[in-house]
Amino acid sequence: MYDTIHEECGVFGVFNKELNNDENIAATVYYGLYALQHRGQEGCGIVVNDDGVFSSYKDLGLVSDVFSNDTLKSLGQGSMAIGHVRYSTTGGNNRTNVQPIEVHHIKGSLAIAHNGNLTNAMKLREDMELTGSIFHTTSDTETIAYTIVKERLTTSSIESAVEVALHKMEGAYSLIIMSATKLIAARDRRGMRPLCYGVTEDGSYIVASESCALNAVGATFVRDILPGEILVFSKEGIQSITTHCGRAEKALCIFEYIYFARSDSNIDGVSVQAARLKAGRCLAKSHPVDADIVIGVPDSGLDAALGFAEESGIPYGIGFVKNKYIGRTFISPTQSARENQVRIKLNPIESMVNGKRVVLIDDSIVRGTTSARIVKLLKEAGAIEVHMRISAPPFLNPCYYGTDVDTKENLIANNHSIEEIAEIIGVDSLGYLTIEDAASLAEGSHCLACFTGEYPTTIPSEPAKFRFEQKLSETKS
Amino acid sequence: MYDTIHEECGVFGVFNKELNNDENIAATVYYGLYALQHRGQEGCGIVVNDDGVFSSYKDLGLVSDVFSNDTLKSLGQGSMAIGHVRYSTTGGNNRTNVQPIEVHHIKGSLAIAHNGNLTNAMKLREDMELTGSIFHTTSDTETIAYTIVKERLTTSSIESAVEVALHKMEGAYSLIIMSATKLIAARDRRGMRPLCYGVTEDGSYIVASESCALNAVGATFVRDILPGEILVFSKEGIQSITTHCGRAEKALCIFEYIYFARSDSNIDGVSVQAARLKAGRCLAKSHPVDADIVIGVPDSGLDAALGFAEESGIPYGIGFVKNKYIGRTFISPTQSARENQVRIKLNPIESMVNGKRVVLIDDSIVRGTTSARIVKLLKEAGAIEVHMRISAPPFLNPCYYGTDVDTKENLIANNHSIEEIAEIIGVDSLGYLTIEDAASLAEGSHCLACFTGEYPTTIPSEPAKFRFEQKLSETKS
Amino acid sequence: MYDTIHEECGVFGVFNKELNNDENIAATVYYGLYALQHRGQEGCGIVVNDDGVFSSYKDLGLVSDVFSNDTLKSLGQGSMAIGHVRYSTTGGNNRTNVQPIEVHHIKGSLAIAHNGNLTNAMKLREDMELTGSIFHTTSDTETIAYTIVKERLTTSSIESAVEVALHKMEGAYSLIIMSATKLIAARDRRGMRPLCYGVTEDGSYIVASESCALNAVGATFVRDILPGEILVFSKEGIQSITTHCGRAEKALCIFEYIYFARSDSNIDGVSVQAARLKAGRCLAKSHPVDADIVIGVPDSGLDAALGFAEESGIPYGIGFVKNKYIGRTFISPTQSARENQVRIKLNPIESMVNGKRVVLIDDSIVRGTTSARIVKLLKEAGAIEVHMRISAPPFLNPCYYGTDVDTKENLIANNHSIEEIAEIIGVDSLGYLTIEDAASLAEGSHCLACFTGEYPTTIPSEPAKFRFEQKLSETKS
Amino acid sequence: MYDTIHEECGVFGVFNKELNNDENIAATVYYGLYALQHRGQEGCGIVVNDDGVFSSYKDLGLVSDVFSNDTLKSLGQGSMAIGHVRYSTTGGNNRTNVQPIEVHHIKGSLAIAHNGNLTNAMKLREDMELTGSIFHTTSDTETIAYTIVKERLTTSSIESAVEVALHKMEGAYSLIIMSATKLIAARDRRGMRPLCYGVTEDGSYIVASESCALNAVGATFVRDILPGEILVFSKEGIQSITTHCGRAEKALCIFEYIYFARSDSNIDGVSVQAARLKAGRCLAKSHPVDADIVIGVPDSGLDAALGFAEESGIPYGIGFVKNKYIGRTFISPTQSARENQVRIKLNPIESMVNGKRVVLIDDSIVRGTTSARIVKLLKEAGAIEVHMRISAPPFLNPCYYGTDVDTKENLIANNHSIEEIAEIIGVDSLGYLTIEDAASLAEGSHCLACFTGEYPTTIPSEPAKFRFEQKLSETKS
Repeated sequence: MYDTIHEECGVFGVFNKELNNDENIAATVYYGLYALQHRGQEGCGIVVNDDGVFSSYKDLGLVSDVFSNDTLKSLGQGSMAIGHVRYSTTGGNNRTNVQPIEVHHIKGSLAIAHNGNLTNAMKLREDMELTGSIFHTTSDTETIAYTIVKERLTTSSIESAVEVALHKMEGAYSLIIMSATKLIAARDRRGMRPLCYGVTEDGSYIVASESCALNAVGATFVRDILPGEILVFSKEGIQSITTHCGRAEKALCIFEYIYFARSDSNIDGVSVQAARLKAGRCLAKSHPVDADIVIGVPDSGLDAALGFAEESGIPYGIGFVKNKYIGRTFISPTQSARENQVRIKLNPIESMVNGKRVVLIDDSIVRGTTSARIVKLLKEAGAIEVHMRISAPPFLNPCYYGTDVDTKENLIANNHSIEEIAEIIGVDSLGYLTIEDAASLAEGSHCLACFTGEYPTTIPSEPAKFRFEQKLSETKS
Repeated sequence: MYDTIHEECGVFGVFNKELNNDENIAATVYYGLYALQHRGQEGCGIVVNDDGVFSSYKDLGLVSDVFSNDTLKSLGQGSMAIGHVRYSTTGGNNRTNVQPIEVHHIKGSLAIAHNGNLTNAMKLREDMELTGSIFHTTSDTETIAYTIVKERLTTSSIESAVEVALHKMEGAYSLIIMSATKLIAARDRRGMRPLCYGVTEDGSYIVASESCALNAVGATFVRDILPGEILVFSKEGIQSITTHCGRAEKALCIFEYIYFARSDSNIDGVSVQAARLKAGRCLAKSHPVDADIVIGVPDSGLDAALGFAEESGIPYGIGFVKNKYIGRTFISPTQSARENQVRIKLNPIESMVNGKRVVLIDDSIVRGTTSARIVKLLKEAGAIEVHMRISAPPFLNPCYYGTDVDTKENLIANNHSIEEIAEIIGVDSLGYLTIEDAASLAEGSHCLACFTGEYPTTIPSEPAKFRFEQKLSETKS
Repeated sequence: MYDTIHEECGVFGVFNKELNNDENIAATVYYGLYALQHRGQEGCGIVVNDDGVFSSYKDLGLVSDVFSNDTLKSLGQGSMAIGHVRYSTTGGNNRTNVQPIEVHHIKGSLAIAHNGNLTNAMKLREDMELTGSIFHTTSDTETIAYTIVKERLTTSSIESAVEVALHKMEGAYSLIIMSATKLIAARDRRGMRPLCYGVTEDGSYIVASESCALNAVGATFVRDILPGEILVFSKEGIQSITTHCGRAEKALCIFEYIYFARSDSNIDGVSVQAARLKAGRCLAKSHPVDADIVIGVPDSGLDAALGFAEESGIPYGIGFVKNKYIGRTFISPTQSARENQVRIKLNPIESMVNGKRVVLIDDSIVRGTTSARIVKLLKEAGAIEVHMRISAPPFLNPCYYGTDVDTKENLIANNHSIEEIAEIIGVDSLGYLTIEDAASLAEGSHCLACFTGEYPTTIPSEPAKFRFEQKLSETKS
Repeated sequence: MYDTIHEECGVFGVFNKELNNDENIAATVYYGLYALQHRGQEGCGIVVNDDGVFSSYKDLGLVSDVFSNDTLKSLGQGSMAIGHVRYSTTGGNNRTNVQPIEVHHIKGSLAIAHNGNLTNAMKLREDMELTGSIFHTTSDTETIAYTIVKERLTTSSIESAVEVALHKMEGAYSLIIMSATKLIAARDRRGMRPLCYGVTEDGSYIVASESCALNAVGATFVRDILPGEILVFSKEGIQSITTHCGRAEKALCIFEYIYFARSDSNIDGVSVQAARLKAGRCLAKSHPVDADIVIGVPDSGLDAALGFAEESGIPYGIGFVKNKYIGRTFISPTQSARENQVRIKLNPIESMVNGKRVVLIDDSIVRGTTSARIVKLLKEAGAIEVHMRISAPPFLNPCYYGTDVDTKENLIANNHSIEEIAEIIGVDSLGYLTIEDAASLAEGSHCLACFTGEYPTTIPSEPAKFRFEQKLSETKS
């Protein structure tokens, strides 16, 4: 298991307001998903809407592996399309969970792409099952879809159905919903996951998890979807609905700024890179150290390292080469080779660090194994001191909102003091970002629950282990 | 488009009565599907049931392409498993329609494999949609699954739910249904599609579309599932339910004997090969001819040719070599090559036919194109006369029960007299099996609707074109 | 290891006498190789000659796997092309041995496709190595190429070089050689392997191992290449050279008729199917038996079975279904499954054999394992007696001419009497074709060395194990 | 065509001095090639030597695509192994040119991996062809191999043969040669391409193009192979031969420092990163500018940008995000998308550059197209001025030593003044590294011919277009 934290998804949608059919609409989604690939590498999919007829292609794998010119062409033309990238969990054949999911009901078809995690999905699902609903997957996105469709039977429009359905949902979600005639973007009332939209030169609207995907398709950023907002794109124009769910304090996941998002994105008015530079500057103030050079662990530690260098006056250095050819198929034929993997992926530049006191910036320590290996490499390359600074507070609590910050047992900071961690990973000093500094990286209020344990929502009383993943013989009956 | 008729599916299931887990249960299904591959080459899938937890793998392609040792192992051990092969339709990415389908509901999970076609699926589906049901596919198997699950909410057992549900279904179906603890085999009241079961030396029960799949896994044939029977395999033993659906005259598809089934299978007590030999003998009586040799178009015409030879006293010959390396990836880089394809697939043996008056036996003429090419090859190889005999009556009507016998327009016999057809395909004489002879190939009553137009059920008033495959702009509103 | 004998290669060539470039010349070779696929399934290749510039594509695998429309197109147009299929040996990555081989020398380029085996290749190679020649492969085809090129330096034409070179070669070879401007077909002085040519409607010449490949591309058979003949196709026309090598008695491999060749081919004036029918008739005379039915093991035993039936008056039956979907990727997850493989590949038709005394015809018994399993299946299906008749004499000696008839140790007939073999494979009686009957299957003299031990050439004193496949530590001195 | 310069190859070898067989020797080469992948992405190969028996695997593609655990295991154990990565040229199926090449001769086998380009390969090859040598490929590596083997016939050892052979070769080469018992590393007399060696903890010797590959396998750098040195690894130890070729002034390709090599490598005693930092500092002195921020084009421009920032006092910035998921399979379904590709691969970070005067550092301008697009992106992101600085002098002359610096026509600097180039690519100012500064980046003398036209060797009078790539109809006489 690789020793890091993962985001769970990225979403992307296109709405062509002229409703003239675009032959390349699948290609536009393809490029958007490319730019969001860092949000999920397990699987991806695209659904194209040609006047109410949906064509889709989904599979496990990277965007570049799943889609070929032929598969894109097979999706045909359309005036709307949505896409999804999904994080790479362990284990085999969960192709049925790849999104967007599509469902068919009496009033038409619906496709949904979802980033986030509901905290009451289990309850909502059980309620529907008790009245006869039948599920095909184990994903909470199917629960969202079914809830919307149920409401559609008694409401006059898809947006009304979405409005009522979202009112019932708790937790984190950034959604793109495509009906026969409308594209709908929605963000949970706390805005826990990012979502924004823009417009292209030819007037198409683009909705995406991050602004970097707007850039990738040449669209101009318009604004972020607001927490609690439903934005409806139809031939009548754009309609914003904000009355459907009770107000709540904004709680964007702070780790979007620290690690998940791409540094060229802007989220809720704040540049991700700027937030990372600030994290570095904060660390320089809260954990100053006398050193010769500041280096970041590529790629995610580089911005904070530059901020630390600027604030501290210690020169910024480029201390590692990251092998850019390591693919998912990288193999480890031997045990010794497995231990050497960090070296193959990441090599320190001796001429930069030899004989120097090094400040090393990374964005997190999960289990500590990878950090220890990186520090060992630096010392072997001649670094005489290594002072590690982490651009986030220590992980102490699990996340229920769509990331894989895990149970307490696997988080090193839960079981060890900072001094112990420093000793385990072999550094001369170790400093984490303070909670206060983390909260200040961007304007507004944020979710810092994985650091503080203060969850913005009620949390599930027990892990959401579904019935059908339990053996009969384990079930109390 | 290749000029032939296709069956739509094959089903296979294993139930280990000891409920001890079998590591190789997926391999057993794999071998069974291999033996049923002739019933469908589009896609295939296997679902393994390990004490209520289902693991599945499905994809487009042949059994040998879809499954590897790794994928079989990933399905793990289990005490039950079902599998499905599906016929290769044209067109792209219909991976979601690959079976078995799996659904999850309040009382557990269900997997279903289906061979046949409901004639009232559209009506059943609409009724459920009006009460809020949400569908993921366009397949009538999903409709069957949902109907069963709906009934499960108000019945005390899965078999009772199946009983009530099947009572509502019209048309042709041979089903294998797997719940957490039971394997259920069911055949429509007319027994339109075959289904049988057997037992292995270690006491596992095997259910399969054809007895050849029992042989493939070393199982001993026990008996055919009866028309209208539900057979329940559980740890309590085997239970037969036959009271659920009104009686109807048996109507097994006669084309199972003529073409679809493998000649080493026995269906409803009759050997498929024996039926084909009889068809050949009937042809020799009803359409005798003075000739030197009788040859069959491989592979499906060989048995009837042998029957014709035996009855007529004209020597049986082996007249063609069929290239056994032609795969699905066979390509046609040039137009002239495309025209030569029949020659590349099938080459007459000149020393066998040169200078001879040939009786040529095939199982059907659909559009006539392929027959014309084969006859041309024989004449080029020196045959001085070619007398074609078809081991079925002429196709005149579409099939609504799970084969692709098409609309009237594409069937040559609808637009031409037998004399005209003989001229089009270039034969010196042409004779079809009579309706009476067809009816007599096997004991019992059969469906001959594609020849006679006398359908055993009501038929759909309009083609079952689903809403979500129609564009909005084509919908009357 | 599968229990059968393999041919080693098939060759195919096209020469367009107008020298106008043909865009589809690679496609023509592709179809020709398809028809020769039974002669070799390990690998294949095509080389196209566009006015002296050679383009080639070769790989391990079946023709349908190796070539796609794209690879065929990438070979471009040309006025000549040759191709090769190679038999599937065990073991891994011998891609360098895939033919045709291409070499470049001071007077141009040369491509060669070879079927057969030299008996003095080791000696020829060592002689050239002593004068500095450098080899890239372990194949005797490279030795042939180098020998020709060496002679080319001191002769005035490529055909003269071929003439001198072939004079030095002993053993079996059917060659197609392509220079910048000429296509040359050559057959060893004994004609041990088949080779013939034909002409297409548009005037292209086709050279092929078997006439079935001429049929596949719509060419008309002209004649077989004569033993010891070199046939040169150039813009000047066709030139036959027959003076280069001493005369020798013709010795076509009799097993080409018995098993290797496709039954729709004619070799040296004799229909392969006719020879097989004759083998069956001979068996009926030499080993008569009182029985109810004659069946052949598909596909190679069917013709001889028909011949036996005709001669004996015992009815011919179709006794097995061979699964036509078993590909090279067929897997055996379990030991018991491996034992069941014969059953999965080949299933007896119970209604045909039950209660009958069966004559079973096959073309050979190598180790006996497969035969024993087939007999067991027949008895399980109810056959009350099984009388096996083999359409060849017993294998007693290794082949040095391009097949894999192995060392004596693995040949069951070397270690057991016919009675013992009958007992081992479980038959009620066993009869082989006599040597005399084998010799009479086709006109002319044949090589029967694998049966008689009378080799038409001197044979290598020791196995041709090349230096570079021996470890240094095993080398003396 | 992508608008950049490419290196042609990387070489790697392992010699286990204990001659005990290492099961993981192929894995060691695999990791080494991973670290050298930047030197060539077209194809790669590994040859393992097990006591004189060579096993090899080679194919087109990246190391991660070509090798799997299975292929590595199939190479078996050995005490020596060599590997090669090759640059991706255009065009199809040149699998035969993938290295290492292997040849077999009377005294054994030889495998060779080569980085560089001979300038007299054509002459050497023709001389050998005139005495009968036969070539299989169009690569000059085959010429090297043949020359060595020819000499081997008249010398007492492989190293003596290498000594005599290399004396005849002109141009650039870094070679690793493997015989049955020895591993030989050799570098041309001018040391035009890098080559070094190191030792692992368990005493194996490693030879590699760059020291970063030593790090990747945990080996300690010992020293660079000297210009004109032959280093022989055998069970007798290490022998250095330096007397075989006339002395010449050292002429390491300066572009190894500027672009080709990985920045964590040391070549001939100089850190590649240090040379790049120096190039940046030189640019700051020779082409100063008043600006707000210095950014590099990732990845190769980052080090020089840091050097420029340090020297100029202008803050260093991280100005771009490079999409790390763009693979070789990246597709461009539409024309407009093709134009957008730079944006998808490289996105400027608006918050970093908006409103700023930017110094943009890149390592070269070839055709100018890519540079123009990058500048346009920066201006769109709000940069108010863009001052481009190139960490190399302008390309004016083709390279004959193993890179693809092309004919004069395609090099923008040959057809335009610096002012014109600045206008074409849209920058406010443009400055190149001076020749003098380039010469001073590392100690010692270097080849700067692509900038100065002063070639260290005689150059070929005409392009090395081989006979067999010319059509007959184009040949004079």
